[in-house]
Amino acid sequence: MKKVRIGIAGYGNLGKGVELAIRQNDDMELTAVFTRRDPSSVKTLTEGVKVCSLDDAKAMADEIDVMVICGGSATDLPEQTPELAKYFNVIDSFDTHARIPEHFANVDKAAKENGHLALISLGWDPGLFSINRLYAESILPNGKSYTFWGKGVSQGHSDAIRRVEGVKKGIQYTCPVDEAIEAVRSGSMPELTTRQKHTRECWVVAEEGADLAKIEETIKSMKNYFDQYDTTVNFISEEEFDAVHNKMPHGGFVMRSGLTGDGEKTNQMIEYSLKLGSNPEFTASVLICYARALSRLRNEGATGCKTAFDIAPAYLSPLSAEELRAAML
Amino acid sequence: MKKVRIGIAGYGNLGKGVELAIRQNDDMELTAVFTRRDPSSVKTLTEGVKVCSLDDAKAMADEIDVMVICGGSATDLPEQTPELAKYFNVIDSFDTHARIPEHFANVDKAAKENGHLALISLGWDPGLFSINRLYAESILPNGKSYTFWGKGVSQGHSDAIRRVEGVKKGIQYTCPVDEAIEAVRSGSMPELTTRQKHTRECWVVAEEGADLAKIEETIKSMKNYFDQYDTTVNFISEEEFDAVHNKMPHGGFVMRSGLTGDGEKTNQMIEYSLKLGSNPEFTASVLICYARALSRLRNEGATGCKTAFDIAPAYLSPLSAEELRAAML
Repeated sequence: MKKVRIGIAGYGNLGKGVELAIRQNDDMELTAVFTRRDPSSVKTLTEGVKVCSLDDAKAMADEIDVMVICGGSATDLPEQTPELAKYFNVIDSFDTHARIPEHFANVDKAAKENGHLALISLGWDPGLFSINRLYAESILPNGKSYTFWGKGVSQGHSDAIRRVEGVKKGIQYTCPVDEAIEAVRSGSMPELTTRQKHTRECWVVAEEGADLAKIEETIKSMKNYFDQYDTTVNFISEEEFDAVHNKMPHGGFVMRSGLTGDGEKTNQMIEYSLKLGSNPEFTASVLICYARALSRLRNEGATGCKTAFDIAPAYLSPLSAEELRAAML
Repeated sequence: MKKVRIGIAGYGNLGKGVELAIRQNDDMELTAVFTRRDPSSVKTLTEGVKVCSLDDAKAMADEIDVMVICGGSATDLPEQTPELAKYFNVIDSFDTHARIPEHFANVDKAAKENGHLALISLGWDPGLFSINRLYAESILPNGKSYTFWGKGVSQGHSDAIRRVEGVKKGIQYTCPVDEAIEAVRSGSMPELTTRQKHTRECWVVAEEGADLAKIEETIKSMKNYFDQYDTTVNFISEEEFDAVHNKMPHGGFVMRSGLTGDGEKTNQMIEYSLKLGSNPEFTASVLICYARALSRLRNEGATGCKTAFDIAPAYLSPLSAEELRAAML
């Protein structure tokens, strides 16, 4: 069997996760890593992997079946995905929900004009959580949907903490409120405010001599980031910080509480949850799984841009349709 | 917008559920109910719905877009689905896992030869649970999958109880063992025996003067049904039985515990669960949702037999691709 030849564009936490996920899938192989840094300065986890400058990527168009783009959503992906879609079949994890329609249109145009296939906004949210919202809302039209995130590290909120004067290191965990989840599970379809759904837990290493009370007050009152939440700020030593807060766990819950039957009185509950030891490694596993689907769909002639909504589950598995029906249905 | 015209073949609990689910979906309408009983003896929940003999169904081939077949898997569906697929686009909830490949082949042949589209084995298991097994195993290739059922009524086990001498009424609930679920959630990937995963809880109304000890012993030692489980048998009055045990709740859990990362040491957990007030009403809601997908795929020209694995999520929703991307991704 011919393996799917993968290129990785961007070699941060997500790119490294993709490299490791490829090792778990026999039908995939890593062809090259592309970076904006000096390629000679990048040391990959896998010995002997080719590292190239991202600027030279297009010269390798014939050697790569799927380019997995591992940049950030704020500024990297809006540029990179449409540009690389001119030369490659591409997949990304673009997660700025409000800008997805615009990103989709840009990528779709570039991919269609050049006969390539693109998959955007893959991962777990957007991605697996989106699919579960869609399945659940389609099955239970009379109902209410809820998404809870955490417990997990929010990069955006951690960055915000680190910008506060006197903060040397900082990390923020988004925590779902157990009572809110239980209220949803009860079938009562509660209306929940932002404050009722999540709390924010901050761990901070302060600069020597910094005003701790002021740091705490500045964090807690930060508009949009923290002011609408019950926030706790914990000051710890740098040693403890480095030892305990060096992982990127995350996860969450998608729930749909619905009513069916005569008079719509029967409670039905659908719940999907993730508990992830590493957010970037899991996101990478989702990307590689969808790279398989992308490769197959491209071989069937598909071009343009698609999302997780457009991909039939069978395309994700290395098993044949017959094997899936016999073993997994 | 032209509505999808639904026929219901078989008017038991599932058929009634389908009738009620159609009311919750504006793009669907119920055209007729087909029964093996004397049509004049069948009273539908919706006033004015046409009730016809199943034998006369083919005369209405032009009036029905999707026939939802609501018979049992043991003897009804293996006959009815291939037969009706000659005249209609059909959907069923065939749930005898071991016989799915054979059923698929029979339905596929009949549907293809007559230019129709069929969807088989829809509902929650097989169905939503199958899809979740597939997604989770494709994303986390190094891992272990678990399915737990319940708490819920097992028709097969309830029937088995009712065949015991001295039993007037009986119902059986399959219960997942909490400790087993917690062990899976811990990421330890336990090996679990049949006895460790589920218990069986029986509620029995005995005939007057029956030997209760003997009934209990007969149930508990019943081969395959109960002997491999910790089973409890509770005797109650007919009044209590009728008041408390008149619902058909069910549900369960599909879980995948996997490892990712360097050295495959990072725990990742995917969990999907259902808590259903009514098993037949929920199954009906799934069938109607997939009837929408079937109708669209048929309009695109698809024929033959498909399963939940072959249907992209977007086909299930009444929303357009643009609306889905903007609102749900």
